[in-house]
Amino acid sequence: MKQEKDLKNYSIRTDLIVDLFDVNQEEEGILVKQEEKEDIKILEVTITKEKNKLNKKKGKYITITYQDVTDKKNAKNLEQVLVKELKKIYVDLKITDNMKCLVVGLGNRASTPDALGPKTIEQVLVTRYLYEIEEVEVDQSYRNVASFIPGVTGNTGIESSDIILGIVEKIKPDFVIIVDALASSSMDRVNKTIQITDSGINPGSGVYNDRKELSYETLHVPVISIGIPTVIEAFVLVSDTIQYLLKHFSYNKENYQKNKLIPITLRNYQHYEGELSHQEKTKLLGEIGNLSEEEIKELIFEVLTPIGYNMMVTPKEIDFVIDKTSEVLANAINQSLHKNFDI
Amino acid sequence: MKQEKDLKNYSIRTDLIVDLFDVNQEEEGILVKQEEKEDIKILEVTITKEKNKLNKKKGKYITITYQDVTDKKNAKNLEQVLVKELKKIYVDLKITDNMKCLVVGLGNRASTPDALGPKTIEQVLVTRYLYEIEEVEVDQSYRNVASFIPGVTGNTGIESSDIILGIVEKIKPDFVIIVDALASSSMDRVNKTIQITDSGINPGSGVYNDRKELSYETLHVPVISIGIPTVIEAFVLVSDTIQYLLKHFSYNKENYQKNKLIPITLRNYQHYEGELSHQEKTKLLGEIGNLSEEEIKELIFEVLTPIGYNMMVTPKEIDFVIDKTSEVLANAINQSLHKNFDI
Amino acid sequence: MKQEKDLKNYSIRTDLIVDLFDVNQEEEGILVKQEEKEDIKILEVTITKEKNKLNKKKGKYITITYQDVTDKKNAKNLEQVLVKELKKIYVDLKITDNMKCLVVGLGNRASTPDALGPKTIEQVLVTRYLYEIEEVEVDQSYRNVASFIPGVTGNTGIESSDIILGIVEKIKPDFVIIVDALASSSMDRVNKTIQITDSGINPGSGVYNDRKELSYETLHVPVISIGIPTVIEAFVLVSDTIQYLLKHFSYNKENYQKNKLIPITLRNYQHYEGELSHQEKTKLLGEIGNLSEEEIKELIFEVLTPIGYNMMVTPKEIDFVIDKTSEVLANAINQSLHKNFDI
Amino acid sequence: MKQEKDLKNYSIRTDLIVDLFDVNQEEEGILVKQEEKEDIKILEVTITKEKNKLNKKKGKYITITYQDVTDKKNAKNLEQVLVKELKKIYVDLKITDNMKCLVVGLGNRASTPDALGPKTIEQVLVTRYLYEIEEVEVDQSYRNVASFIPGVTGNTGIESSDIILGIVEKIKPDFVIIVDALASSSMDRVNKTIQITDSGINPGSGVYNDRKELSYETLHVPVISIGIPTVIEAFVLVSDTIQYLLKHFSYNKENYQKNKLIPITLRNYQHYEGELSHQEKTKLLGEIGNLSEEEIKELIFEVLTPIGYNMMVTPKEIDFVIDKTSEVLANAINQSLHKNFDI
Repeated sequence: MKQEKDLKNYSIRTDLIVDLFDVNQEEEGILVKQEEKEDIKILEVTITKEKNKLNKKKGKYITITYQDVTDKKNAKNLEQVLVKELKKIYVDLKITDNMKCLVVGLGNRASTPDALGPKTIEQVLVTRYLYEIEEVEVDQSYRNVASFIPGVTGNTGIESSDIILGIVEKIKPDFVIIVDALASSSMDRVNKTIQITDSGINPGSGVYNDRKELSYETLHVPVISIGIPTVIEAFVLVSDTIQYLLKHFSYNKENYQKNKLIPITLRNYQHYEGELSHQEKTKLLGEIGNLSEEEIKELIFEVLTPIGYNMMVTPKEIDFVIDKTSEVLANAINQSLHKNFDI
Repeated sequence: MKQEKDLKNYSIRTDLIVDLFDVNQEEEGILVKQEEKEDIKILEVTITKEKNKLNKKKGKYITITYQDVTDKKNAKNLEQVLVKELKKIYVDLKITDNMKCLVVGLGNRASTPDALGPKTIEQVLVTRYLYEIEEVEVDQSYRNVASFIPGVTGNTGIESSDIILGIVEKIKPDFVIIVDALASSSMDRVNKTIQITDSGINPGSGVYNDRKELSYETLHVPVISIGIPTVIEAFVLVSDTIQYLLKHFSYNKENYQKNKLIPITLRNYQHYEGELSHQEKTKLLGEIGNLSEEEIKELIFEVLTPIGYNMMVTPKEIDFVIDKTSEVLANAINQSLHKNFDI
Repeated sequence: MKQEKDLKNYSIRTDLIVDLFDVNQEEEGILVKQEEKEDIKILEVTITKEKNKLNKKKGKYITITYQDVTDKKNAKNLEQVLVKELKKIYVDLKITDNMKCLVVGLGNRASTPDALGPKTIEQVLVTRYLYEIEEVEVDQSYRNVASFIPGVTGNTGIESSDIILGIVEKIKPDFVIIVDALASSSMDRVNKTIQITDSGINPGSGVYNDRKELSYETLHVPVISIGIPTVIEAFVLVSDTIQYLLKHFSYNKENYQKNKLIPITLRNYQHYEGELSHQEKTKLLGEIGNLSEEEIKELIFEVLTPIGYNMMVTPKEIDFVIDKTSEVLANAINQSLHKNFDI
Repeated sequence: MKQEKDLKNYSIRTDLIVDLFDVNQEEEGILVKQEEKEDIKILEVTITKEKNKLNKKKGKYITITYQDVTDKKNAKNLEQVLVKELKKIYVDLKITDNMKCLVVGLGNRASTPDALGPKTIEQVLVTRYLYEIEEVEVDQSYRNVASFIPGVTGNTGIESSDIILGIVEKIKPDFVIIVDALASSSMDRVNKTIQITDSGINPGSGVYNDRKELSYETLHVPVISIGIPTVIEAFVLVSDTIQYLLKHFSYNKENYQKNKLIPITLRNYQHYEGELSHQEKTKLLGEIGNLSEEEIKELIFEVLTPIGYNMMVTPKEIDFVIDKTSEVLANAINQSLHKNFDI
């Protein structure tokens, strides 16, 4: 039944492996490594079995969690972490310096949060045409790199996958890097998480379209995809807010005396660990109060979908954030690809 | 106390008079006229007393409610309604054909939903420089029109009001038209409502800034402002969704048998009139279920503000909608200003 | 020898057939038809033999000459002529209403005169994705149309031809329309000439690059290319000016008495037919004065090339002209492709 | 008489003092200092008398001549020279760290070579709004800076001067920096010369408009203008080419034997010092050959103006050059204004 399928669909729709994942539950076929560098956390998940609990494809999934990238120092640190992780992936995938790369930016240039891919690609240093000119001797410290922005199906009438497949078949790169903006399954991750994976990407999966996958299986060369959640969907915002509502009450209850003196805007309960009891939740939020997070998401999705209000949610300063993030990504990609690249 | 003020602020923060207003409660100092043209509704509210229940300035407030503007026929109809309403306002304000106009587009070009003003202004037919050249004889069927895009304070460091005041003092137009994107206080209004008023506008009021007003009082010439809500804030989305949640249950209860056969995505309960009882609401949503709409908004605002998550919500196809809306606005402004304008 | 080749190259480098062509010299294998509609001239040249005097490929070459397109009436007339000529070509090429089209815009979005292709494509009505969704029943008065902007090799590292070939092989359109800005071989033609041909196009030929041809031979479907000269190269400007210099003197000589009273800016000698004698030319311009137009071009090319000054020349208001021209092209393409298209 | 005036006008129309100037002819009221830093030349001309041979206003004129700014090392060097020269000017004008600055970018965003001002301003770090918020304590190592892009009269109908005057009167900066693209009077200077002056600027003077000056006299605060020639007009290109034609022949004559072996494209005669005799010039170019450079310019101007062909000439890669140049300018302005600015 269509309806059932929809509900199922959304629940597995997150593009981020961290959303599916309890870090402490390492198990057969799933290897986990964690690292921290100042404010930046790096989680490396390797899935070695095709059939696994996370229902994800085999491959490496690196999740980098960072703070506000509009701060210069944070941006610099993040850039360095990215370069290191990309280079590690190249080694894993046996990508050597003489291998040709195609860098692709998915998404819609005209929509601020979706412009991350195109804006990144515009800053990637391209050299392929120099390698193509017979007479030119190219400085070998610069890799053979091409780049491409396929646009969105709504404007071209063509699926991004078809465009990229067509180009890959023509120019035959040795590996492909794909940059895309994702939809997030939680408010906390928006513009604060980067996922790098060698397992492929499903363009447009962030907006409920069942497009063709871009991966080793379809392109026949290694595919490294870099995704950053830049929007959340309305139903996620609402269900996250309901969780925060419960937290907020729990925090206020605990700090009842103290809070009277603290202005509401300063009561940062976000990381408060206390929880309301079953009874308190019922009193406050009725039956809703005792649904699981997952169940609330399904419910809100069910409420918003028929009235066409499953909108897109972004931070107010999204244009500035996208500018900075694309700069960090492009810098990191350039440094990882070209031996002598100097910013 | 700051906190109190914040909570108060938001509650009066809507820029749309329809949000404050029960159409049937005409009373002293508030005149109401309604009209319909096919799918388009026109509500004209005239406030004649400075102290009034709506807490709004004296003046005329025209609210035009329309359907999806990306449909060509709708767009054409809306354009014609706009031309007619603008011309009526010119008559009211004693604006004659020989009077000089400055058209201003507020907002941020780089942020899709906020680009409405700048995008409209780029399509307004400007003639003032022809009038300024002594030797040129200008076709009098084209009014003397200048236009301006002041940008946003975050980029210029200057308040839009100061920029516009400075220019008005220099070029001395006889009246000013200001186009701006607004924040909406309800999901239903986004990109479906235009408010035209001669009472002035508070630039940036849509994003919680206490900027200087642009009005007859500050510019000393008539000011006509045209505002369209293009975003909602996160807290509005959440509280609207809670209302829809209740409606959804009420509808499902009533249509229990029938619904089994209808896919969820087709159960359009949006305009269902039935309501849950107090008891049912409590069962479903606990104490929250029996708060008023206003109280829920306050609560959600209080939950989201301290954690910095009062984000901005837009439809997914916002870039396309803004393109079309700015075209309609510019066409209507051009036709209303220039006697011989031909699209 | 490279040098020889260069000099040869430029001389045949015009993309416009009218530049190679004395209209009155119809001959075997070259059919000529002329038509006028108000200010618009239509020249249809059909080349039926592969080896021909013009050294051009077999095919139809339609040259439309028009006046200033920033005038609304001119623009409307030109649009109608274009629609008619495009439809005639479809008939010639046996393109029926149910055939799928790919519209491609060559050129660089970031360089004003070269943005003609991309700006046109952005306004083309695309429907292919609707035809691809199984459940959707598409209104058959709208043709199956996809569009694409490949970007420039300098940015992507990939030749436009390779990108387009790749996409054509994937999505298999029944015919292709290509829009491109050309370099002109004469100041008179810039933004005043459209060439439509079914013989293919050489992307980037306007800037001395030997790219791969896009034509029936390479894409295996009919290719209709629409080219408009939007720039001239410096050497063309200089040699054209030397011709004008001679004309200017000839005109001034003839009108010696009269001219004293006419301000220089009003002495429009452009269409003056008189010519200086050999002796007069020598007196005025020495040996240069008696070179042929072609020889002067070669000479100036030889002067400018080694010092890297073969710059690009455009009208000052080029941004406005490109906006208007792309609108006319897109309107005409839309009307020719979609039966029910209404502007 | 209008005509006379036109011809005169153009001849003094260069915005660059170096064009008017024989460096070795220092004289009363004109002080000259020269400096070199690697490939960069700095010429400082101080005019101390209002009536002077150069017919220029009193003030300091710094001309920085540099090589291709798309080379990273050159760009870095140029940036450092600019910072130093700007800081020297601040000291001269008694501008201290606590003084408020308004940075203005003149020109048309939509026309590649004219976008230099707007593109630079977009990268200038703005802080004024922080200083305006009472509660915020601003880090004093960041100066109070606002910025503004007035647009062009053709789009707004308002002269840039009026807009800037209006804003200066409102926000009362202590000094103003203005960035503008200029028209060059010689092919050699395009994108290779920066002029900084404290004597004011005439917006639009680069395109024959007699706009109001922006200077200390009109704004009543120090005005530092930074101008870079990014285009040449057609008549300059043609007359420069005629000079090169003579040089080319002189060089070829001298190197007759040698040249036979050198491909034309490699015969770089640009800096060849030899000259043709009067007789040789006459033989080659007739009467034209013996006109002075100035006379040839006047003549070509006279030929091109009546037929409306005084077009604009730019390098082919102008979009890339403007991107890089605006980056260098913005970096230098930021470093000169903000003590702690770190790129």
